[in-house]
Amino acid sequence: MIELLPVRDLAACCAPLTRDTIPAEQAADLAHRLKALADPTRLRLISIVAASADQEACVCDLTEPVGLSQPTVSHHLKLLVDAGFLTRSKRGTWSYYRLVPGSLDAVAGLLTTT
Amino acid sequence: MIELLPVRDLAACCAPLTRDTIPAEQAADLAHRLKALADPTRLRLISIVAASADQEACVCDLTEPVGLSQPTVSHHLKLLVDAGFLTRSKRGTWSYYRLVPGSLDAVAGLLTTT
Repeated sequence: MIELLPVRDLAACCAPLTRDTIPAEQAADLAHRLKALADPTRLRLISIVAASADQEACVCDLTEPVGLSQPTVSHHLKLLVDAGFLTRSKRGTWSYYRLVPGSLDAVAGLLTTT
Repeated sequence: MIELLPVRDLAACCAPLTRDTIPAEQAADLAHRLKALADPTRLRLISIVAASADQEACVCDLTEPVGLSQPTVSHHLKLLVDAGFLTRSKRGTWSYYRLVPGSLDAVAGLLTTT
Protein backbone atom coordinates (compact mmCIF):
# COMPACT_ATOMS: atom_id res chain seq x y z
CA MET A 1 0.00 0.00 0.00
CA ILE A 2 1.58 3.29 -1.01
CA GLU A 3 1.08 6.52 0.89
CA LEU A 4 -1.16 8.70 -1.29
CA LEU A 5 -0.99 12.46 -1.34
CA PRO A 6 -4.28 14.27 -0.73
CA VAL A 7 -5.78 14.51 -4.18
CA ARG A 8 -5.66 18.32 -4.17
CA ASP A 9 -1.93 18.23 -3.57
CA LEU A 10 -1.51 16.00 -6.59
CA ALA A 11 -2.36 18.86 -8.92
CA ALA A 12 -0.33 21.36 -6.92
CA CYS A 13 2.80 19.25 -6.66
CA CYS A 14 3.08 17.54 -9.94
CA ALA A 15 3.85 18.47 -13.50
CA PRO A 16 1.84 16.88 -16.32
CA LEU A 17 3.07 13.53 -17.53
CA THR A 18 4.24 14.81 -20.88
CA ARG A 19 6.17 17.93 -19.82
CA ASP A 20 9.07 16.16 -18.14
CA THR A 21 9.86 12.58 -17.27
CA ILE A 22 7.61 11.76 -14.35
CA PRO A 23 9.52 10.83 -11.13
CA ALA A 24 9.06 7.26 -9.86
CA GLU A 25 7.12 8.30 -6.76
CA GLN A 26 4.67 10.40 -8.72
CA ALA A 27 4.24 7.55 -11.23
CA ALA A 28 3.36 5.16 -8.38
CA ASP A 29 0.80 7.58 -6.97
CA LEU A 30 -0.84 8.28 -10.32
CA ALA A 31 -0.84 4.57 -11.28
CA HIS A 32 -2.61 3.74 -8.03
CA ARG A 33 -5.37 6.29 -8.73
CA LEU A 34 -5.74 5.23 -12.34
CA LYS A 35 -6.08 1.60 -11.20
CA ALA A 36 -8.94 2.62 -8.94
CA LEU A 37 -10.68 4.17 -11.96
CA ALA A 38 -9.74 1.46 -14.46
CA ASP A 39 -12.76 -0.75 -14.01
CA PRO A 40 -16.05 -0.47 -15.92
CA THR A 41 -18.19 -0.88 -12.79
CA ARG A 42 -16.24 1.72 -10.83
CA LEU A 43 -16.40 4.16 -13.75
CA ARG A 44 -20.16 3.70 -13.89
CA LEU A 45 -20.48 4.14 -10.12
CA ILE A 46 -18.45 7.34 -10.05
CA SER A 47 -20.39 8.57 -13.06
CA ILE A 48 -23.76 7.89 -11.40
CA VAL A 49 -22.63 9.61 -8.20
CA ALA A 50 -21.26 12.60 -10.11
CA ALA A 51 -24.36 12.96 -12.27
CA SER A 52 -26.67 12.80 -9.22
CA ALA A 53 -28.21 15.84 -7.53
CA ASP A 54 -25.51 17.46 -5.33
CA GLN A 55 -23.05 14.88 -6.73
CA GLU A 56 -24.15 12.54 -3.96
CA ALA A 57 -25.88 9.14 -4.05
CA CYS A 58 -27.09 6.54 -1.56
CA VAL A 59 -25.58 3.08 -1.92
CA CYS A 60 -29.20 1.89 -2.01
CA ASP A 61 -29.59 3.64 -5.39
CA LEU A 62 -26.34 2.31 -6.86
CA THR A 63 -26.84 -1.46 -6.87
CA GLU A 64 -29.68 -1.62 -9.41
CA PRO A 65 -28.05 0.45 -12.20
CA VAL A 66 -24.86 -1.65 -12.18
CA GLY A 67 -26.69 -4.95 -11.60
CA LEU A 68 -24.48 -6.15 -8.75
CA SER A 69 -25.02 -7.08 -5.11
CA GLN A 70 -24.65 -4.47 -2.40
CA PRO A 71 -21.48 -6.03 -0.89
CA THR A 72 -19.83 -6.01 -4.32
CA VAL A 73 -20.89 -2.43 -4.97
CA SER A 74 -19.67 -1.40 -1.50
CA HIS A 75 -16.30 -3.00 -2.22
CA HIS A 76 -15.94 -1.02 -5.46
CA LEU A 77 -17.01 2.17 -3.67
CA LYS A 78 -14.42 1.58 -0.94
CA LEU A 79 -11.64 1.46 -3.54
CA LEU A 80 -12.85 4.79 -4.92
CA VAL A 81 -12.94 6.27 -1.40
CA ASP A 82 -9.43 4.97 -0.65
CA ALA A 83 -8.12 6.53 -3.86
CA GLY A 84 -9.60 9.91 -2.94
CA PHE A 85 -12.38 10.17 -5.52
CA LEU A 86 -15.39 9.70 -3.23
CA THR A 87 -16.23 10.42 0.39
CA ARG A 88 -18.62 8.30 2.40
CA SER A 89 -20.99 9.43 5.11
CA LYS A 90 -23.38 7.24 7.03
CA ARG A 91 -26.85 8.63 7.70
CA GLY A 92 -29.34 6.27 9.34
CA THR A 93 -29.26 2.86 7.68
CA TRP A 94 -27.46 3.88 4.51
CA SER A 95 -24.11 5.11 3.34
CA TYR A 96 -24.02 8.10 1.01
CA TYR A 97 -21.19 8.70 -1.45
CA ARG A 98 -20.13 12.06 -2.76
CA LEU A 99 -17.64 13.04 -5.45
CA VAL A 100 -14.56 14.78 -4.04
CA PRO A 101 -14.50 18.13 -5.86
CA GLY A 102 -11.44 18.45 -8.08
CA SER A 103 -10.32 14.84 -7.71
CA LEU A 104 -11.02 13.71 -11.27
CA ASP A 105 -9.78 17.05 -12.60
CA ALA A 106 -6.48 16.60 -10.75
CA VAL A 107 -5.89 13.30 -12.54
CA ALA A 108 -7.08 14.70 -15.86
CA GLY A 109 -4.69 17.62 -15.43
CA LEU A 110 -1.72 15.28 -15.14
CA LEU A 111 -2.68 13.54 -18.39
CA THR A 112 -3.33 16.69 -20.40
CA THR A 113 -0.57 17.60 -22.83
CA THR A 114 -1.52 21.21 -23.53
CA MET B 1 -10.45 -8.35 -25.80
CA ILE B 2 -12.82 -5.48 -26.42
CA GLU B 3 -13.01 -3.58 -29.69
CA LEU B 4 -11.54 -0.14 -29.02
CA LEU B 5 -12.63 3.00 -30.82
CA PRO B 6 -9.86 5.02 -32.45
CA VAL B 7 -8.71 7.31 -29.68
CA ARG B 8 -9.77 10.45 -31.55
CA ASP B 9 -13.34 9.15 -31.77
CA LEU B 10 -13.37 8.66 -28.04
CA ALA B 11 -13.41 12.39 -27.47
CA ALA B 12 -15.84 13.00 -30.31
CA CYS B 13 -18.35 10.33 -29.29
CA CYS B 14 -18.41 10.45 -25.60
CA ALA B 15 -19.61 12.81 -22.92
CA PRO B 16 -17.47 13.36 -19.82
CA LEU B 17 -17.92 10.84 -17.04
CA THR B 18 -19.59 13.28 -14.69
CA ARG B 19 -22.14 14.87 -17.01
CA ASP B 20 -24.42 11.84 -17.41
CA THR B 21 -24.22 8.23 -16.36
CA ILE B 22 -21.65 6.65 -18.63
CA PRO B 23 -23.04 3.83 -20.85
CA ALA B 24 -21.64 0.33 -20.22
CA GLU B 25 -19.82 0.14 -23.55
CA GLN B 26 -18.09 3.48 -23.06
CA ALA B 27 -17.15 2.44 -19.52
CA ALA B 28 -15.51 -0.74 -20.86
CA ASP B 29 -13.54 1.21 -23.46
CA LEU B 30 -12.36 3.85 -20.99
CA ALA B 31 -11.51 1.24 -18.33
CA HIS B 32 -9.36 -0.62 -20.86
CA ARG B 33 -7.39 2.53 -21.68
CA LEU B 34 -7.00 3.53 -18.05
CA LYS B 35 -5.70 0.03 -17.28
CA ALA B 36 -3.04 0.48 -19.94
CA LEU B 37 -1.95 3.68 -18.19
CA ALA B 38 -2.36 2.41 -14.61
CA ASP B 39 1.15 1.09 -14.12
CA PRO B 40 4.14 3.08 -12.83
CA THR B 41 6.51 1.73 -15.49
CA ARG B 42 4.11 2.45 -18.33
CA LEU B 43 3.47 5.97 -17.01
CA ARG B 44 7.20 6.58 -16.91
CA LEU B 45 7.67 5.18 -20.43
CA ILE B 46 4.90 7.31 -21.93
CA SER B 47 6.29 10.29 -20.04
CA ILE B 48 9.81 9.74 -21.37
CA VAL B 49 8.51 9.33 -24.93
CA ALA B 50 6.32 12.43 -24.66
CA ALA B 51 9.08 14.55 -23.16
CA SER B 52 11.56 13.50 -25.89
CA ALA B 53 12.41 15.58 -28.94
CA ASP B 54 9.55 15.19 -31.47
CA GLN B 55 7.71 13.12 -28.82
CA GLU B 56 9.54 10.07 -30.16
CA ALA B 57 12.03 7.70 -28.51
CA CYS B 58 14.01 4.61 -29.47
CA VAL B 59 13.39 1.53 -27.35
CA CYS B 60 17.17 1.47 -26.94
CA ASP B 61 16.89 4.68 -24.90
CA LEU B 62 13.99 3.49 -22.74
CA THR B 63 15.42 0.49 -20.91
CA GLU B 64 18.03 2.31 -18.82
CA PRO B 65 15.75 5.00 -17.32
CA VAL B 66 13.20 2.46 -16.10
CA GLY B 67 15.82 -0.13 -15.09
CA LEU B 68 14.16 -3.08 -16.83
CA SER B 69 15.17 -5.53 -19.56
CA GLN B 70 14.33 -4.77 -23.18
CA PRO B 71 11.75 -7.59 -23.51
CA THR B 72 9.92 -6.30 -20.43
CA VAL B 73 10.02 -2.73 -21.69
CA SER B 74 8.82 -3.89 -25.13
CA HIS B 75 5.91 -5.69 -23.49
CA HIS B 76 4.86 -2.54 -21.63
CA LEU B 77 5.22 -0.49 -24.82
CA LYS B 78 3.04 -2.97 -26.73
CA LEU B 79 0.22 -2.48 -24.22
CA LEU B 80 0.47 1.28 -24.75
CA VAL B 81 0.43 0.81 -28.53
CA ASP B 82 -2.60 -1.51 -28.32
CA ALA B 83 -4.47 1.03 -26.21
CA GLY B 84 -3.81 3.76 -28.78
CA PHE B 85 -1.37 5.94 -26.84
CA LEU B 86 1.80 5.18 -28.79
CA THR B 87 2.68 4.21 -32.35
CA ARG B 88 5.65 2.03 -33.20
CA SER B 89 7.86 2.22 -36.27
CA LYS B 90 10.83 0.02 -37.02
CA ARG B 91 13.90 1.71 -38.51
CA GLY B 92 16.99 -0.43 -38.92
CA THR B 93 17.63 -2.48 -35.81
CA TRP B 94 15.44 -0.50 -33.45
CA SER B 95 11.81 0.28 -32.82
CA TYR B 96 10.83 3.88 -32.25
CA TYR B 97 7.81 4.89 -30.25
CA ARG B 98 5.85 8.08 -30.70
CA LEU B 99 3.02 9.60 -28.67
CA VAL B 100 -0.30 9.60 -30.55
CA PRO B 101 -1.33 13.27 -30.59
CA GLY B 102 -4.50 13.88 -28.63
CA SER B 103 -4.67 10.40 -27.10
CA LEU B 104 -3.94 11.39 -23.50
CA ASP B 105 -6.05 14.52 -23.90
CA ALA B 106 -9.00 12.42 -25.06
CA VAL B 107 -8.88 10.38 -21.87
CA ALA B 108 -8.28 13.50 -19.75
CA GLY B 109 -11.29 15.13 -21.41
CA LEU B 110 -13.56 12.29 -20.30
CA LEU B 111 -12.41 12.68 -16.69
CA THR B 112 -12.70 16.45 -16.54
CA THR B 113 -15.75 17.75 -14.69
CA THR B 114 -15.75 21.33 -15.93
